[in-house]
Amino acid sequence: GVLGSGDFARSLAVRLACSGFRVLVGSRSPKRNASLFPAAAEVTCQAEAAKKADVIFVAVFREHYSTLCDLADVLAGKILVDVSNNTEINHHKESNAEYLASLFPACTVVKGFNVVSAWTLQSGARDGNKQVLICSNNQEAKRTVAEIAQVMGFTPVDMGCLSSAREIENVPLRLLPAWKIPTFLALGLFLCFFTYNLIRQVIHPYIREQKNKLYKIPVEVVNTTLPCVSYVMLSLVYLPGVLAACSQLYHGTKYRRFPDWLDQWLQHRKQIGLLSFLCAALHAVYSLCLPLRRSHRYLLIETAVKQAVEKKMTIWVEEEVWRMEIYISVGIIALGLLSLLAITSLPSIANSLNWREFSFIQ
Amino acid sequence: GVLGSGDFARSLAVRLACSGFRVLVGSRSPKRNASLFPAAAEVTCQAEAAKKADVIFVAVFREHYSTLCDLADVLAGKILVDVSNNTEINHHKESNAEYLASLFPACTVVKGFNVVSAWTLQSGARDGNKQVLICSNNQEAKRTVAEIAQVMGFTPVDMGCLSSAREIENVPLRLLPAWKIPTFLALGLFLCFFTYNLIRQVIHPYIREQKNKLYKIPVEVVNTTLPCVSYVMLSLVYLPGVLAACSQLYHGTKYRRFPDWLDQWLQHRKQIGLLSFLCAALHAVYSLCLPLRRSHRYLLIETAVKQAVEKKMTIWVEEEVWRMEIYISVGIIALGLLSLLAITSLPSIANSLNWREFSFIQ
Amino acid sequence: GVLGSGDFARSLAVRLACSGFRVLVGSRSPKRNASLFPAAAEVTCQAEAAKKADVIFVAVFREHYSTLCDLADVLAGKILVDVSNNTEINHHKESNAEYLASLFPACTVVKGFNVVSAWTLQSGARDGNKQVLICSNNQEAKRTVAEIAQVMGFTPVDMGCLSSAREIENVPLRLLPAWKIPTFLALGLFLCFFTYNLIRQVIHPYIREQKNKLYKIPVEVVNTTLPCVSYVMLSLVYLPGVLAACSQLYHGTKYRRFPDWLDQWLQHRKQIGLLSFLCAALHAVYSLCLPLRRSHRYLLIETAVKQAVEKKMTIWVEEEVWRMEIYISVGIIALGLLSLLAITSLPSIANSLNWREFSFIQ
Repeated sequence: GVLGSGDFARSLAVRLACSGFRVLVGSRSPKRNASLFPAAAEVTCQAEAAKKADVIFVAVFREHYSTLCDLADVLAGKILVDVSNNTEINHHKESNAEYLASLFPACTVVKGFNVVSAWTLQSGARDGNKQVLICSNNQEAKRTVAEIAQVMGFTPVDMGCLSSAREIENVPLRLLPAWKIPTFLALGLFLCFFTYNLIRQVIHPYIREQKNKLYKIPVEVVNTTLPCVSYVMLSLVYLPGVLAACSQLYHGTKYRRFPDWLDQWLQHRKQIGLLSFLCAALHAVYSLCLPLRRSHRYLLIETAVKQAVEKKMTIWVEEEVWRMEIYISVGIIALGLLSLLAITSLPSIANSLNWREFSFIQ
Repeated sequence: GVLGSGDFARSLAVRLACSGFRVLVGSRSPKRNASLFPAAAEVTCQAEAAKKADVIFVAVFREHYSTLCDLADVLAGKILVDVSNNTEINHHKESNAEYLASLFPACTVVKGFNVVSAWTLQSGARDGNKQVLICSNNQEAKRTVAEIAQVMGFTPVDMGCLSSAREIENVPLRLLPAWKIPTFLALGLFLCFFTYNLIRQVIHPYIREQKNKLYKIPVEVVNTTLPCVSYVMLSLVYLPGVLAACSQLYHGTKYRRFPDWLDQWLQHRKQIGLLSFLCAALHAVYSLCLPLRRSHRYLLIETAVKQAVEKKMTIWVEEEVWRMEIYISVGIIALGLLSLLAITSLPSIANSLNWREFSFIQ
Repeated sequence: GVLGSGDFARSLAVRLACSGFRVLVGSRSPKRNASLFPAAAEVTCQAEAAKKADVIFVAVFREHYSTLCDLADVLAGKILVDVSNNTEINHHKESNAEYLASLFPACTVVKGFNVVSAWTLQSGARDGNKQVLICSNNQEAKRTVAEIAQVMGFTPVDMGCLSSAREIENVPLRLLPAWKIPTFLALGLFLCFFTYNLIRQVIHPYIREQKNKLYKIPVEVVNTTLPCVSYVMLSLVYLPGVLAACSQLYHGTKYRRFPDWLDQWLQHRKQIGLLSFLCAALHAVYSLCLPLRRSHRYLLIETAVKQAVEKKMTIWVEEEVWRMEIYISVGIIALGLLSLLAITSLPSIANSLNWREFSFIQ
């Protein structure tokens, strides 16, 4: 059974019908809404649907839960699936599912399907996340809903008892929260270093020697900026660990909570590290592209022609040669090590390592 | 207990015995077949094995299920594990496990272990997929079989009730079905563009100016072909979404099923996108290899010598310089964004994103 | 309830209290130890804690399990969670959890939380592995402990019955055991080939022609060494499969165990293959860096100048050109195929392939 006639209710009915379930839709104005639903779903009044169905999806906004209270008698003993989402993180003191459970104490409430979009419901779980997070205080009801999710083509994930509902309701509202600060940090650092390098490599030679080196902006200036950002970010990964250790030594105990800013910083280390790796990798690609450029080719030919005209046969500077060889050699090794760290942060790899192996690699 | 004496039955017996279980093999000619099984497994007649064992693996072809019917009384109340596979996808109307359940209504049938090869059974789950998909209508029986799989070194995955058996039986018959069409598409496009570029870069100059440029075939012609394929494939990823939106606008509803060809296309977008990324990545590697080539070196030296002999000191073409700088710069950014998309399509990353984050990145 | 007052007991109490549980700590000297625990945890004598709590974490060394025997009456019917670890793999004949279960036959013993470090407990499961492996002979107790783990922010993983405890206790003692031999093998091979190439490319020209080519060591010598290592390692991946097939043909059966050395070798194939891929990838990066070097630039200019002075207009050697074009072309394809193999070895990708697809790709 599906109570409601909104977008989600309709998508849910479509999907349930496609998966071979008999679907009863309970609508407040069944006649007007019948045309909105697929032919396979039977649209009746709410009481009728609540009476006949065993598992009832409550696809109604939290604000209208109380309107269902007259159905309390018919619903008693049935499984109610709360599929609702909020518009803000931690909007209400109590999660929607717990609120529903308090309104219908005679029913078994299961939270689920809220992490799935109406679009995914309609078109089937094609790509991206196929997981449906489910929680309930009743094992049997949880299993029934999990099996429905399975048949619908999703992967049910047991999230424990109903108190996890708040967490599950917050999931669809997240938009990469852990990446916000590190990304702005990286952009800020990039901007600073880019300005400095622009002044040094382009504006300064122009003012002093009237040389037009504007062509350096898209590749060379960016390429000298990236490793600076990467270095600063990498140091920001290891710094909070040192600060945390100092704080522990200072207070003489491991069991004191860190100040909030340090705690936040410690939690963002993984993202800062991955952005540092991204900058390092981009630096490697930019560097490898240097000899592809026309400017590189032209400068090389011009030097050769100049040497040939002046009949200087040698141009070898041992120091320069060694500097570059060592720079490349160390750069490759550093990038290799950072790659290893980045691979270890993939969830499926991290899960196959124990904490001793993980900290060994880190 | 294991009923049967084929390759799978023997591997199963070996593995069960190695994992510390007491194994009873029920064979129709126990004396002849005893030598085929490991010493740890006791080979008796079928009735004997069926009587003594609690969990019975039916390692017999579907065609011979009916020959077990005389054992129905002895088997009553026991757990039968159907390990059979078909030779074709959806070969029979009813899955083998459901057929077995209909023959032995007094038994609890569990589907499982069919996704594992005889080789993996013998040698242990070393690499690749260690999952054993299990389904049954009986929770307790499913749990028992899951624990046997666990002890044998596999990862049991609960696939719900017995109606999932058909799906589980189709799993081992798949051979990357979603990749077939996109791969042929990519090969076809590659062939077309390769022919065009071959004519343009090698055959045309040869006919018109008698210049031998055959050396360009392995690297340069391939390198100009790859980005064309990548672009067309990338546009084929985003086109069906637009067509789907148009179809919805035209029909005025979101709840109408798309025509089959569009549905198929929408389902292959991920694979087409990954092949597009592959072509783009190969193009990047090929481009980076260009200055490694001897031909590049020779052409450079020849130009330098020509310039030196003619005493022209400058060769700088501002427009050419800018074209290449911008091309490289944009190329790196595009490849970086495609890499991000490719990483997001890794199952373990996709599972850690909600659909809002996933569609934000896409 | 938490029995014990060590580092792990304290971290556990901190984490449980933070997750909203009421924590009772049972200590042998509650007055002295009370200050060590967070304010939210109530520190009493052992008997008191054992009496009041329903789930009791036994954070005591295996050696002191017997000191808890006087509590046997109070503990009867409760869930004991064994969180202990050993200092050596397979240290005792019986796992700690099974030993605890034999001491307290009236209790339900659950193994769990031993794979989590005290540090992770305190600071929350931030990165790395969030899995808590749980096993028990009692489904209900296992579920209770799994839900506690869930609320604490970990991902409970059901590992079956209590006999898996030995395996779970060995997990935190592992330090990449499968990588030890392959890594030493790769280092040994690298050293051999590096010495050979050093003699050939640097020492020999120095002795014979007094040419100083020391600058070649960091990049060029390493770059010629890497593909040799990669080739030998790759052949070592495929060789044991051939040997195994030969052994099977020789003995005329598939059901005979391989000799131990071959079995070990077969099990390390994945790691050897990944190290082979690593060497190949490094070789690609080193090769791409070659034209970035100053020495490359200087040699190029010197050749151009020499040609210009001698007025030789052409330097083109068709054979050299073709050799390099084909080398690059084949190298890219080989690296692409190896990358595909490496991607397939990611756990989350391997789990989405059936064994037919996996062996097709391999």
